[in-house]
Amino acid sequence: MNTHQQPVRARVRELTSATNSLIKVFRRAISEGRTRDGWLCGEGPHFLEEALKPGAHAIVHSVLVSAEAAEKHQTLLARLPVESELAQVPERLFHQIAGTQTPQGVAAIVEVPVPDLSALVAIPDAVFVIACGLQDPGNMGTIIRSADALGASWVVALAGTVSPFNPKSVRACVGSIFRMPVFVNLKPKELFRLLRKSGVRILGTDPRSTVSVASADLRGRVALLVGQESAGLPGGISREADELLSIPIRPEADSLNAATATGIFLYEIARQRGFQYQP
Amino acid sequence: MNTHQQPVRARVRELTSATNSLIKVFRRAISEGRTRDGWLCGEGPHFLEEALKPGAHAIVHSVLVSAEAAEKHQTLLARLPVESELAQVPERLFHQIAGTQTPQGVAAIVEVPVPDLSALVAIPDAVFVIACGLQDPGNMGTIIRSADALGASWVVALAGTVSPFNPKSVRACVGSIFRMPVFVNLKPKELFRLLRKSGVRILGTDPRSTVSVASADLRGRVALLVGQESAGLPGGISREADELLSIPIRPEADSLNAATATGIFLYEIARQRGFQYQP
Repeated sequence: MNTHQQPVRARVRELTSATNSLIKVFRRAISEGRTRDGWLCGEGPHFLEEALKPGAHAIVHSVLVSAEAAEKHQTLLARLPVESELAQVPERLFHQIAGTQTPQGVAAIVEVPVPDLSALVAIPDAVFVIACGLQDPGNMGTIIRSADALGASWVVALAGTVSPFNPKSVRACVGSIFRMPVFVNLKPKELFRLLRKSGVRILGTDPRSTVSVASADLRGRVALLVGQESAGLPGGISREADELLSIPIRPEADSLNAATATGIFLYEIARQRGFQYQP
Repeated sequence: MNTHQQPVRARVRELTSATNSLIKVFRRAISEGRTRDGWLCGEGPHFLEEALKPGAHAIVHSVLVSAEAAEKHQTLLARLPVESELAQVPERLFHQIAGTQTPQGVAAIVEVPVPDLSALVAIPDAVFVIACGLQDPGNMGTIIRSADALGASWVVALAGTVSPFNPKSVRACVGSIFRMPVFVNLKPKELFRLLRKSGVRILGTDPRSTVSVASADLRGRVALLVGQESAGLPGGISREADELLSIPIRPEADSLNAATATGIFLYEIARQRGFQYQP
């Protein structure tokens, strides 16, 4: 049966009780950004739209809509696969559940399957991003978005780094979270051992380095280490880098925003490869 | 008299009444980010510190501190020029006035003198940034920070663009607002006429353009047009551009964050000039 032709009304479950188990799951997931299974939870039609885009690695498990939003977003909801659970609640109940000040009447729980890291390390000429201590969720999401746009193969958030699944990070990602494999809770020692064994060059970003990113050879398989907003790379991590690189800025200026700097590093890496991105 | 040797205690005015005229000025200025005279108002010791840095074009008119902060930030307050007004209020009054949820006990009103635009247009090899419809204050501030770091000579925010003096923008600037001349309320027609007359090349940023920023010649005097986050450059503004340029991204990806993209454009412009920045 073609899901596009199934009327949305026919499959929607109407819920009115705040103590319903699905409502409880959404309430917790919206506030934490994830379910207990680690599935992502996001608000707004845009979040759902991105999860349903071709090329997105995402399984939409459940969608919760307000009565008004069910009407307004019929076309979008009609694109839900038949396996997805779709429930509707009265306007005021959605407002109670929502984490945003002006709820848009759509929330979705989406599983993003995590691929095997060791297989991804073997991709020829691949670029990897390793966030080491970054604190701002907006910066985290913006970096994942840049990694997606500028052809990185995956992003790692090491321990002590803001969660890439933080709702603010997911919002800043604008759908990249469904295209870009993101790994958390990896042990630095094991990760760096895997990278070395696979012949990946480890590049540290360090504003104090006198080696300009523009003068370094950035071809081949590389992993880019991104530090904390003001403190930079932790010493222990910095020592893992084969090279430390900086972006030459005006001596009177302070610094670049961490996400902007990472975008520039990824751009320079892509530029040196003639913008030939891995499929 | 050396201001560094004047005890802070001796010059501090103690205020306790919420109806005091200076308190009223701060209350309004904190909520609007500016005074009626257009002077900047910011919170936190970092804001004041940046305004007092060598190279900052900033006149600190008034500083308001809580009793606790007066004690804690003595060294910083001792650096205030003798002309600056310094007032202290009880903790609870500062909390009432503050715009932040966790006030840091320091607020300052700072005048940033605006230089003459036509003189700045004549700088050889200068780079200018013109924001046309940008909406997010964080992006605006991050762009001013990048413009400062990557050697632009000034930033313009055209009508319909978020104010660069919005408190969120000023926070994202991290002091660049005191180094980078920022112009608002300029009429687009007059600005573009001035640029043309002065032989400045106008570069539009447009993700749909097939001309890569990496293949374009970006030397000489250039003005970079930055559009709205999702809609890009307004049609009327786009037509003013001598060239439209894009950053080549992965076809499956969506887009780059507006501030990241602007940072990349400014980096590429700086790279092509060998990072030789104007003094």
